[in-house]
Amino acid sequence: VSAPGAVGLLGGGVIGGGWAARFLLAGSDVRVYDPDPEAERKLGEILELARRALAQLSAVPLPREGTLTVVGTAAAAVEGVELVQESAPERAELKRALLAEACAAAAPDVLIASSTSGLRPTALGAEMGRPERFLVAHPFNPVYLLPLVELCGGERTAPETIERARELYSSLGMAPLVVRKEIDGFVADRLLEALWREALWLVNDGVATAAEIDDAIRLAAGLRWSFMGTFLTYRIAGGEAGMRHFMAQFGPALKWPWTKLMDVPDLTDELLDAIVEQSDEQAGGRSVRELERLRDDCLVSVLQALRARDVGAGAVLARHERELAGSATAQVLANGDDLSRPLALHAATVAADWVDYNGHAHESRYLQVFGDASDALFAYLGLDAEYRAAGSYFTVESHLSHLREALLDDRLSVTTQVLDFDARRLQVFHSLSREADGTLLATAEQLFLHVDTVDRRAAPAAAAVLARVQRIAEAHAALPRPERAGRAIAIPR
Amino acid sequence: VSAPGAVGLLGGGVIGGGWAARFLLAGSDVRVYDPDPEAERKLGEILELARRALAQLSAVPLPREGTLTVVGTAAAAVEGVELVQESAPERAELKRALLAEACAAAAPDVLIASSTSGLRPTALGAEMGRPERFLVAHPFNPVYLLPLVELCGGERTAPETIERARELYSSLGMAPLVVRKEIDGFVADRLLEALWREALWLVNDGVATAAEIDDAIRLAAGLRWSFMGTFLTYRIAGGEAGMRHFMAQFGPALKWPWTKLMDVPDLTDELLDAIVEQSDEQAGGRSVRELERLRDDCLVSVLQALRARDVGAGAVLARHERELAGSATAQVLANGDDLSRPLALHAATVAADWVDYNGHAHESRYLQVFGDASDALFAYLGLDAEYRAAGSYFTVESHLSHLREALLDDRLSVTTQVLDFDARRLQVFHSLSREADGTLLATAEQLFLHVDTVDRRAAPAAAAVLARVQRIAEAHAALPRPERAGRAIAIPR
Repeated sequence: VSAPGAVGLLGGGVIGGGWAARFLLAGSDVRVYDPDPEAERKLGEILELARRALAQLSAVPLPREGTLTVVGTAAAAVEGVELVQESAPERAELKRALLAEACAAAAPDVLIASSTSGLRPTALGAEMGRPERFLVAHPFNPVYLLPLVELCGGERTAPETIERARELYSSLGMAPLVVRKEIDGFVADRLLEALWREALWLVNDGVATAAEIDDAIRLAAGLRWSFMGTFLTYRIAGGEAGMRHFMAQFGPALKWPWTKLMDVPDLTDELLDAIVEQSDEQAGGRSVRELERLRDDCLVSVLQALRARDVGAGAVLARHERELAGSATAQVLANGDDLSRPLALHAATVAADWVDYNGHAHESRYLQVFGDASDALFAYLGLDAEYRAAGSYFTVESHLSHLREALLDDRLSVTTQVLDFDARRLQVFHSLSREADGTLLATAEQLFLHVDTVDRRAAPAAAAVLARVQRIAEAHAALPRPERAGRAIAIPR
Repeated sequence: VSAPGAVGLLGGGVIGGGWAARFLLAGSDVRVYDPDPEAERKLGEILELARRALAQLSAVPLPREGTLTVVGTAAAAVEGVELVQESAPERAELKRALLAEACAAAAPDVLIASSTSGLRPTALGAEMGRPERFLVAHPFNPVYLLPLVELCGGERTAPETIERARELYSSLGMAPLVVRKEIDGFVADRLLEALWREALWLVNDGVATAAEIDDAIRLAAGLRWSFMGTFLTYRIAGGEAGMRHFMAQFGPALKWPWTKLMDVPDLTDELLDAIVEQSDEQAGGRSVRELERLRDDCLVSVLQALRARDVGAGAVLARHERELAGSATAQVLANGDDLSRPLALHAATVAADWVDYNGHAHESRYLQVFGDASDALFAYLGLDAEYRAAGSYFTVESHLSHLREALLDDRLSVTTQVLDFDARRLQVFHSLSREADGTLLATAEQLFLHVDTVDRRAAPAAAAVLARVQRIAEAHAALPRPERAGRAIAIPR
């Protein structure tokens, strides 16, 4: 499946520009009609954002970027394209006229789609010739990153139009969701709009501010919603008894004024059975315990992702970890004072984004853990931010050996033996083990060079640091030399 | 700030058990009263989930776990504690009676909190002595991972009770949100409940199934909601013109039937001004472009986190990347066919988050780039997703040498020379240079072992792969042996 050769876009605002970026970066040529004289600049800025995001997102090389052409009329935008995508403002008459014009100019087999957030396709296509090839394809902002596109046909849309659209948007890496009945707002925006109207009441009534309402979402339910919707979440909330229990327990609350939306469907046996049956099908035989572990794994990964960005729940976590770290550092220094064994200064857990296509931690993550262990050693030797303004140890050589696989969620601990040193150099040997059973997974021999951080040249370490190194090296000289120290790479015959 | 010494929990179900886990893992001793004869087993299972999740979440060592005691009465649960947390089922009379009993038994300065999802504190505390120390502290499932706790006082709650509660829950790594006015459902559940009721209508009306409704959230808006609520999202959706523009554009839609919630506040000038002012304050001077980059960075990180779990939008991304990888392989093969020189199959750019405290790329990033070069070599040898279902090369040894510093935005290119091979092993030498001036920055000698990916043991590579390796190795035998090949680490005297 490859992206369309060329597409025509009607409208190049936030949504049209997002479409332009998604198509161009999937390799399609894009023709845009937008009467805004600033359209070209705005499109360029959205494309810049998209290039930046996709370069971060995937290691896989993207197809060669398509060509962007800004044209002066709707008819010019639809010349020689496979798909016309309309993303004009949400004014029904404007959209209807634009769609009818594009449809008249386009070749008869061209797919025609509207990005409308909620207007019905039957009404939008009322003035169109050949409406059987017209549908709504409703994306979400930013279009170049979010996978969902809702597909909704009108009364005259042909079934094969929905199928062609499903294939076309899938070829862009999107996830089409076919809406079973034509309604205003389709599925996603009905949910978003209900929440939004409730949010407006909360501001209107002085219950909470915009920032507080946003926190109420992003610090709890929003984290779950990034991977699990409300139905599966509530199935789990029912605990071991599952969905029927949840509905029985919270059914009465539907009559309580917990939202302004007081018009609720009757929880008839029929509706209850439908919900329980659909929930069972969604769970696909997984127990509540299994779903809880899946939920927790995803929450852990999302929290770690946001911790790296220092945003929302990730910022809350980072702050708490800094508080915990104070007592932890004291503990590490206390642990490290037994010099009759290798130092145990660092531990880590294999996170989800460490795992590569072979199903184990990527080799670079081992070196990340060894590097963190080296940093813990440097801290133990007294190298702090103040010291590093003048001097630091840089790694000049590393020799890694991989003995067993480190798998997702494995807790890893590193021990460190000092092998040799002089005024400028320090040679150590790290051993990385799985904490659960003590299995040795990998080793790293490293050579560090002490460097003047101003002129970036080799320079002796400070006397206090060397004294500490010497004390450790003398104690470690009594330890057996690690079997893999001093190793060179070769294929023995 | 450290966690309370001891707390008393009334109710040990999904929420009470989650509280038990959060307090125990923060170091507090916990006394639980729950009449369910299965309470102890259920608590143990939730605690097991929490231990598993927190071990993954943080590298920082946690405090020593507190002690869990299951007791037979509410009065016994509140003995010697700093906080009583009630998490009984949502039946007002049951909660009122339990809270009054606990309050009578507790020391006078003990904080008393209810986990109710939406019942008002004034009514819940009606039968209580000393109601000034009572409030609602509403958490979210799973309590041991989600940071939000809504604090809501009743008419007789003292302001210092709210302050004490804020400190106490913060000490657990939570993010307290103080609700400004006492209303049913507080803030978060009003939003969740509006969305939930709308979802029930969609099932009731046959528009979508439970799984489809969940997809409509988790593949778009839910990804954004994990770090950014609706207000900030919509500010960005307004594009360069911001919040007032967004409200002007979507204001009319509030009268449209895009949800069953048709009772909407009038968008008076006063409400509009309040929203715009609160939105400006929330944006804190950041431009829409800056917010877009923040949004995209967070989306990229969340998508990568979910890709590693192969869930939701992450599964969509993983599938698309596998499709793209196919065509990328073909491209690599076309580029690599001059065997009179080392192969040039990979290039990369030093990104901002590669740079460490020494001001250059972290050592693990060099190995990431060398690993990607090895992956390009494997693709060149014909190892695709289909091949990897049975076999793959795993790295068993790497020897890195760092010669010069790779700095932010440096474009790096890697060349690869095949040194040796047999049926199971492959030895290569990578050279990494700065593209701008050709300076050699680092080298890596690597030994790969061909592995049966089902039983994870060494196994010969396929004949077609070996034929290709042989052709390259024979051509590369004419090249000079790299100076740093076969090197072992030592400090020469």
